[in-house]
Amino acid sequence: MADINSVAPAGWESAKGSAAPSMSKKFTFDRYGVTREFLDRVADLSEEDGYHPNISFGTTYVNITIDARDGETLGNADRAFAEAVDRLARIDD
Amino acid sequence: MADINSVAPAGWESAKGSAAPSMSKKFTFDRYGVTREFLDRVADLSEEDGYHPNISFGTTYVNITIDARDGETLGNADRAFAEAVDRLARIDD
Repeated sequence: MADINSVAPAGWESAKGSAAPSMSKKFTFDRYGVTREFLDRVADLSEEDGYHPNISFGTTYVNITIDARDGETLGNADRAFAEAVDRLARIDD
Repeated sequence: MADINSVAPAGWESAKGSAAPSMSKKFTFDRYGVTREFLDRVADLSEEDGYHPNISFGTTYVNITIDARDGETLGNADRAFAEAVDRLARIDD
């Protein structure tokens, strides 16, 4: 997993069962309102960036999986997207 | 799966790997804008209803899993929620 480790920001881990190299991270929140705010922010980021990660969520958690954009190797654009998501998770309640 | 069949609307199937009885359905859309509109509608429905399903989505698909609210048996409230989700998926583009 040298590939993942060299690119993924802290807390992002190799995703299981993905075809392309990918990294995923789970974010948890105290209540649904904060979860939804985070999801809305990620959706806006996706539209700006033109990249849409795979997302799973429930009331108080969000799992985000970022696949390698080129289908082969996680690169700087993938890392930048992950870092942007990390920033969006810092929601002042 | 008599339980699922008697309660789940058409197209909803028994979810794999869930602890409580649950039903899930995959919705696909032509493009992200429609996917997001659907997600927003489901989020509004969840807030009105006070029930939050587990949702997975990517650019053009949304998987929704509804767990039995009472933790034991899928009932009328679960069925009504599924039917409401089905109605929300009819998005005029």
